[in-house]
Parts: sequence; C-alpha cells; structure tokens
Amino acid sequence: MDEAPPPTSPTGLSVYVAVSQLLGLTLLATTGAWLGRYRGGVAWHSPLQFNAHPLCMVLGMVFLQGDAVVGQGRKGTKCSGGDGLFSAGIIAVFESHQTKGIPDMYSLHSWCGMATFVLYLLQWFLGCSFFLFPGASFLLRGWYKPQHIFFGITLFILSITSCLLGITEMLLFKLSDSYSHFVPEGILANTLGVLLVAFGLVVGYVLTREEWKRPPLAEELALSMDFKTLTEGESPGGGSQ
Amino acid sequence: MDEAPPPTSPTGLSVYVAVSQLLGLTLLATTGAWLGRYRGGVAWHSPLQFNAHPLCMVLGMVFLQGDAVVGQGRKGTKCSGGDGLFSAGIIAVFESHQTKGIPDMYSLHSWCGMATFVLYLLQWFLGCSFFLFPGASFLLRGWYKPQHIFFGITLFILSITSCLLGITEMLLFKLSDSYSHFVPEGILANTLGVLLVAFGLVVGYVLTREEWKRPPLAEELALSMDFKTLTEGESPGGGSQ
Repeated sequence: MDEAPPPTSPTGLSVYVAVSQLLGLTLLATTGAWLGRYRGGVAWHSPLQFNAHPLCMVLGMVFLQGDAVVGQGRKGTKCSGGDGLFSAGIIAVFESHQTKGIPDMYSLHSWCGMATFVLYLLQWFLGCSFFLFPGASFLLRGWYKPQHIFFGITLFILSITSCLLGITEMLLFKLSDSYSHFVPEGILANTLGVLLVAFGLVVGYVLTREEWKRPPLAEELALSMDFKTLTEGESPGGGSQ
Repeated sequence: MDEAPPPTSPTGLSVYVAVSQLLGLTLLATTGAWLGRYRGGVAWHSPLQFNAHPLCMVLGMVFLQGDAVVGQGRKGTKCSGGDGLFSAGIIAVFESHQTKGIPDMYSLHSWCGMATFVLYLLQWFLGCSFFLFPGASFLLRGWYKPQHIFFGITLFILSITSCLLGITEMLLFKLSDSYSHFVPEGILANTLGVLLVAFGLVVGYVLTREEWKRPPLAEELALSMDFKTLTEGESPGGGSQ
C-alpha cells in the first residue's frame, strides 16, 4: 500500500452519462410542452405563477441536482445552479396559493416536498461544516463522507418522488374525470413521470458504480489506514461502528 | 490473499434493523387503522375488495419485500411471502375496477405500479437464470450480481413510490375538498406515506453499509481474482466494462 492505486477508467460509463443528459433534456422539453400547450405557459406575478413551480422543480431539483451529484461523485466537488431554482419553485407555489386562497401543506406531495427541502438545507449545512470548516478533523470527515453520499442519493430520490406526487395531484385537480379517458394531456404528463423515473435510474446507476467513484487522494489513503488502525485497536472485530 | 478475510461484524447495524421492523409493524397498523376506521375494512368479492389492494401492497410489496432484500444482502438467499400478496393486490384492483366499471391503467400510479410488477417478474426470472441455472458460468454470475443488487434496491424504491402515488390518488378521490381542511383521515394517510419513506430510508441505509454485505465465499474470492486478471489482461486500465 505504498503507492496510490492507478486511476480507474470510467469510460464504460460515459454512454450512461450521455443517456442521462439526453433524458434530462427530454424531461425539460416534456415539462415545457405540458405547461405551454395545456396550461397556458409560465409567468411570475400572474395567474400563471403556479406553473413556475413544476418547471423550477423539474429543472432545479431534479435535472441540475442529478448532474451535480454525478459530478460530485467523480470530482468530489459540487456546483449547481439548482439551489436557487429549488427555492424559486417553492416561493412560486406559496405565493400562488396565497393569491388564490388555497390552503398550504395539507397534501402528501407538500409534506414530501417540504421534507426534501428541509433535509436538503441540513445536508448543505452539514456538508459545509464537515468539509469546509477547518476545525473538522480528517477522522471526522472520513466518518461523515459515506453518510453524506447516502443522504445525497436519498434526497435525489425524494426529489423525484415529490415530482411524481405533484404530477398526480395536478392531473387529478385539472383533468378530474377526463384523466380516466386517456386524454393527451394525461398521457403526456404520465410520460413526464416515467421520464423522471428513467432519469433517476440512469443517474443512480452511474453514481453507484465502483469505477465512477473518485480515486482517493494520497492523504485520504493515509487517513483510511489510520482510521482502520484506530478502529481495529478499539474493537478487535473491526468493521462495526 | 491465501485466506478469506475475517467475517465482518454487523452488530452496529442491528439497531437499524430493529428500527426497520418497528417501522414496518407501524406501517401495517397505520394501513389497518386507515382502512378499518375510515374505509369500511377489507373483504374479497365484495364492494370492499378494492381495500385489499393497499393492504396487500403495503404488506407484500413493501414490508415483506424490504425484509427479504435485507435478508438477501446478508445471507445471499431470498425467501418472502410477499410475491403472492403482490399478485393478490393487483388482482384485487383489476377485479374491483371491473365490478365498478372504472377504467384501468390510465394514471401515473397505475403506470408506475405495473412497471414495478413487470420489472419484478423480470428480476425474478433473471435471478433464477443466473444463480440457479447450472449452465451459468461463475464469470457470468460475477458480472450479473451487482446488477441484480442495483435493480433489487431500485424495485424496492419504485414499490414505495407507487404506494405514495396510490395514497395521493385515493385521498383525492375519496376526500376531494375536505382533504385541504386537514381532516383526520388525510393526516393519517399522509402519516402512512411518511412512514413508508422512513421504512425505505432505514432499509436502504442498512443495505448499503459495507459491514452488512455478506463476506465473500472462498470460491467467490478466487473467482474475483480470476475475473480481475481476465479484465486487466483485456484492457490495461481495468475497472471499465
């Protein structure tokens, strides 16, 4: 273990990354088509403000967040314009509800969506505390990293689930009985749901492949050896927390 | 690499497994309370047949499937009574729709649920072909195993997502306007949705911990060395497919 392992080659996965990007763009086009063709389009501070909610969520919370976690898995850094869109999407629905006198936070969609937002803020805060705060020890960072990865993937799945719940709610509210007659809007929005699942599947597949993981840096390798020695010193069985 | 590594100790995870079982039982109690208190209970071949659908799905598709994948991760075998309940739940909804003249397969919930069922059958068929069919080579099994694990976890997540969509649909159909007035049935069913997410989170956490994975058998270790030699022989970078 004197030298770092050779860098892994993720070339076999680049096809999957390309497919994820194609799916992501199709997602956006489908959302645009739904809102533009059947829901009158999108505009802020107007009766169409509500429509900014699904658009911001699909673009910011799913597409850009998906790209950010894939980039983070490989490069170890995360940079996304999705955070602002995520917040804008939430403001859009609350302002639109207030204007129309619709109660907030009663549905399972709103509970899941709000839980995703709060946990996302927590993940961001903990990520900054552990990885950017100079006081955090290497040992602590080594312990936190797998938790951060697990919750990152969980939040991405929760985001997609919240979108699917939102699509179902919107279709049942807007189409009501005609939904069961296979009207084109219903089929288009269902297809958007299937595309969201497919995007999540491909991004999840890339993220969980061993060869996609960033090769550890030299200091991380040294740290992992130290950590192993420490934990094995404390409990002879090793491995358990 | 002459001897097998010492078996890892998953004792630190037994608390999480216990929590998952408590959550699972709470899930069943909450589903029972919802259907019994607000929906008239469950009975086959009666106007209450529809209610067998959510009950079978929460019990068979989520709780028992969750327990089965956790057991499979550790012991390498899967045995679950969930498969029969999964099928019974699907029969319940189709028969109930036919009796009441409700169209089938138009909603996003039905699309996701049916996709889960079809992919589940495919997973079962491929699992049998690769792991039980004597003609499958060790090399082929070694390649297929991580795919089987990924799709197993994916199917479990899709099952929970389908349940959440079903809860949303049922509440919007049955409660309509009163849902937005925070009536007790709405809060109870939303809580069921949150419990489903929590169950998925805890099961997913246990499944993805390194120390939960079954230690490889001696012949699998030998196989992994052979496989490594083979792939490295073919492509010097290694790691890529």
